[in-house]
Amino acid sequence: MPRPHSSSPVPRSAPPVSGLSIGQYLIQRLQDHGLRDIFGIPGDYVLNFYGMLEKSPINVVGCTREDCAGFAADAYARINGLGAVCVTYCVGGLSVCNSIAGAYAEKSAVVVISGAPGLGERVNDPLLHHKVRDFRTQYDVFDKLCAAVTELIDPMTAFREIDRVLETAVRRKRPVYIEIPRDMVSVTPYISHTWSPPEVASDPQALKEAVDEAVKWLAKAERPVILADVEIHRFGLEDAVLKLAESAKIPIASTLLGKSVINETHPLYVGIYEGAMGREEVTKFVEESDCVLLLGAFMTDINLGIFTANLDVNRCIYVTSEQLRLRQHHYHGVVLGDFIRALADRKPKTRSRKIPAGVRVPKKKFVLDAPKPITIMRMIARLNEQIDEDTIVIADIGDSLFGASDLTIRGQTEFLSPAYYTSMGFSVPAALGANVARPDSRVVVVCGDGAFQMTGMELSTIVRRKYNPIIIILDNKGYGTERFLHPGEWEYNNIHPWRYSRLPEVLGGGRGYEVRTEGEFDAALSEAWNDSSQMSLVQVHIGKDDSSQALRRLAERLGKKI
Amino acid sequence: MPRPHSSSPVPRSAPPVSGLSIGQYLIQRLQDHGLRDIFGIPGDYVLNFYGMLEKSPINVVGCTREDCAGFAADAYARINGLGAVCVTYCVGGLSVCNSIAGAYAEKSAVVVISGAPGLGERVNDPLLHHKVRDFRTQYDVFDKLCAAVTELIDPMTAFREIDRVLETAVRRKRPVYIEIPRDMVSVTPYISHTWSPPEVASDPQALKEAVDEAVKWLAKAERPVILADVEIHRFGLEDAVLKLAESAKIPIASTLLGKSVINETHPLYVGIYEGAMGREEVTKFVEESDCVLLLGAFMTDINLGIFTANLDVNRCIYVTSEQLRLRQHHYHGVVLGDFIRALADRKPKTRSRKIPAGVRVPKKKFVLDAPKPITIMRMIARLNEQIDEDTIVIADIGDSLFGASDLTIRGQTEFLSPAYYTSMGFSVPAALGANVARPDSRVVVVCGDGAFQMTGMELSTIVRRKYNPIIIILDNKGYGTERFLHPGEWEYNNIHPWRYSRLPEVLGGGRGYEVRTEGEFDAALSEAWNDSSQMSLVQVHIGKDDSSQALRRLAERLGKKI
Repeated sequence: MPRPHSSSPVPRSAPPVSGLSIGQYLIQRLQDHGLRDIFGIPGDYVLNFYGMLEKSPINVVGCTREDCAGFAADAYARINGLGAVCVTYCVGGLSVCNSIAGAYAEKSAVVVISGAPGLGERVNDPLLHHKVRDFRTQYDVFDKLCAAVTELIDPMTAFREIDRVLETAVRRKRPVYIEIPRDMVSVTPYISHTWSPPEVASDPQALKEAVDEAVKWLAKAERPVILADVEIHRFGLEDAVLKLAESAKIPIASTLLGKSVINETHPLYVGIYEGAMGREEVTKFVEESDCVLLLGAFMTDINLGIFTANLDVNRCIYVTSEQLRLRQHHYHGVVLGDFIRALADRKPKTRSRKIPAGVRVPKKKFVLDAPKPITIMRMIARLNEQIDEDTIVIADIGDSLFGASDLTIRGQTEFLSPAYYTSMGFSVPAALGANVARPDSRVVVVCGDGAFQMTGMELSTIVRRKYNPIIIILDNKGYGTERFLHPGEWEYNNIHPWRYSRLPEVLGGGRGYEVRTEGEFDAALSEAWNDSSQMSLVQVHIGKDDSSQALRRLAERLGKKI
Repeated sequence: MPRPHSSSPVPRSAPPVSGLSIGQYLIQRLQDHGLRDIFGIPGDYVLNFYGMLEKSPINVVGCTREDCAGFAADAYARINGLGAVCVTYCVGGLSVCNSIAGAYAEKSAVVVISGAPGLGERVNDPLLHHKVRDFRTQYDVFDKLCAAVTELIDPMTAFREIDRVLETAVRRKRPVYIEIPRDMVSVTPYISHTWSPPEVASDPQALKEAVDEAVKWLAKAERPVILADVEIHRFGLEDAVLKLAESAKIPIASTLLGKSVINETHPLYVGIYEGAMGREEVTKFVEESDCVLLLGAFMTDINLGIFTANLDVNRCIYVTSEQLRLRQHHYHGVVLGDFIRALADRKPKTRSRKIPAGVRVPKKKFVLDAPKPITIMRMIARLNEQIDEDTIVIADIGDSLFGASDLTIRGQTEFLSPAYYTSMGFSVPAALGANVARPDSRVVVVCGDGAFQMTGMELSTIVRRKYNPIIIILDNKGYGTERFLHPGEWEYNNIHPWRYSRLPEVLGGGRGYEVRTEGEFDAALSEAWNDSSQMSLVQVHIGKDDSSQALRRLAERLGKKI
């Protein structure tokens, strides 16, 4: 599926700006960077900008709560290359802190646009509603959570500031923050301003030497492997990585966070590498390599099996948007995409490494045992039969993630999960974001009951906009991961049981299913899959002690620190 | 009703501490400050402290989401004098930013306790899950939103730090932040530590001169009035103010934020003062005064009628926890409570001022017009017949607040609302907090549909704990206030309609009502009132153009700034 990444549609030059107000200029530049939709909730300090947005070509998606809008914008950004959320001052902005922190941690380019009291209202520092400590409080908070922040308080610099901050979002794939006092929205600066789309170029000599060295190394390597991670998604480099792998016939492993970087039925695909937490055969295959091409990798705890990954730096080419390291030495000024593309263009020779039998997850036919109580792993196995190349799978954290990591994803960037920041409640609002970004895809959410109780009511917007995701709720009446992390009968791990499958009655749309056995799940999933007219919500009752093997292994490691 | 304010139960001396771990010491001091309950959600970085809490005498109230836990703790603090929320690192902590900002803005003493990665895990700055930018990010954010913050990273100073931060919360009635790395929770410091409960004393000479001056002024005043505001609630000074008013027979007005500072059937009660936004008779009565005792007042925009209040400084005695000002001069070092009590003790003489007919809201019998479509103001009028001295009314923002401000509150601090910070969605979680703080009270919530969609599912915890509040949802299918602020057909002001009255089926508890006419509302309210066994949820359909007079006046003023 073609990916409308923000880097592509940007024109290479633009006419000088004239006659645009600050608000109009911001809307124009957002579109130039490929934004077609925005999420948020209005409020009085941002109403005039909301009015401008509603009249613009940008589609405004109202959500039930700001943090959900933040998650939706994050998921949208992961698919589209750039996302945005528009909120009012403090009561709105301070409600997206957690979503934006997650976007920062996992490198997702979300633009936070917040209204603010007009400059003219601030004389003598009055106690205007929504103010916390002073008029800078919200700005100061986002300065801690974003890669760039600005207040548009001066017409002379406002356009340049918008350019700078949006370019940071696109270049660094991190959230940024733009605050507009409401009396600045319609101000038209008397300046001549020309926008030049951002260009990031590598140092050509450093690039050449680095690629030369990598080519030489690969030529000698006996057991090369690519480990492709999340930045490949963020920078839209899936095709470049695939070209490199195919040209040199190098097998590709992924990570939890990077899952779906390649069509997982591809013959070069090895599986998910998670150090000692993952499948032993994959771990061995990767760790035996004498040349690991670590592409766009995040060295995080859960992603790398709670630091059980055993990757010798002396056998790694480690390249990300921030650094390029071969063994013990570093090259500066080399852009991630440039390196991958240049290396692929050289069609490096290397030993064609066979993937031994047993490394790839064996394709097993799912045989239904209809009356049997359903388990997480059996549910995933059944789901795996159903999904196809147009499916986007979104996993919440805990066993939703570990279970779903066994799914075979057929497309690219069709698996979304907060696998590093691990914020519960990401998945349902993310489904909204994914649906808005790719209305023609079928979205499947796997979500625990605890996570659903946090943000699941964002289904309201999904029903309102007539999307048709399938939401699978793993209902074990509590915080399942914590039960394994901190064994014992702790009351705080239990939550109030909801009759989730009755929610469509409250929301006036969608259809609910409640299942306990394999047969019931099979029937519900088939029916939901064939019903593309509405949202489906499948409440799956599972045992309190049911879990994936991965969760048990993780809990054993993590539990030691508690 | 007696108010278990945190200042009272504190012992005047305490034995030296020995053998307590840092976690145990924190739990001990929270109790010494009057805390009996704590709200929150567990997570792995705080699980061991959660275990300690669950074994302690403190009641742990698990919520569906952290921001709801924050609102619940805020409401609890408004009633109890101190509240607390316990969350995990970043995904938990950064989800309470908005609730805590509201507590800061409106002076509510909420302690935020957050787990964090152990110090031993931080070597070489690894990418541990939940980390945003660095290990200080969350601390830095709360430094912007709290009156005091600390990380308990050193056993030698941990107890002193806990003392300092909790005392700031109690003295300043602002939120504070305590971060505990998980490997510090069970550390027992080898120190001898004695806790002395905080004592805040006034400068006796400044106090005496200020009271002398006030007594003299009152003796000459012709038209004195007290304007009592929110700090009177926060510092538990309702009885002191009443004593002052009664001893000198001075009429008392309140503000929106300070509403219920006095039993509103008291003969000295005038009504709510809101400048040009409020009832003309009350405005005139207050502004004609030649000696306004402004006690514990917040000079905020909505509270003071979007700055239409016309209070001449030269006729004001303005005293808060932060300043004491008579006309143009200031006294330093005088404690709010000391001033009010000392002034009352002097039994100041002043002109006994009659409250003219028409100033107080006339007591009108509500005559039901059963088939008539219900309006906000008629709904409030009917509710006013029902509430009694054991009712706590919680109003969300917008017309829930403006409408409910007409209710006659019989008790003290029995009206809660975020009338300054005006964060939508405060009310339902606040009902949980109020129920936990005062299980014997009957809680009534008035809430708009937009606000309910943000946090209303916290009813889950209310059902789970078998509380019996009555939740009235004003359902006008959108953001009603904004419709008046920004006239025109804006799509962003419409929200998806829910069948709120069906939620009890999802939650497995409570009873739902759906009403359209006065007769239906009357019947539902009577039935709900008499059914004290469960939560009641009354969905009230109102017209899109229905509003209180107050909202229309407000919208006219606020709308000019948009």
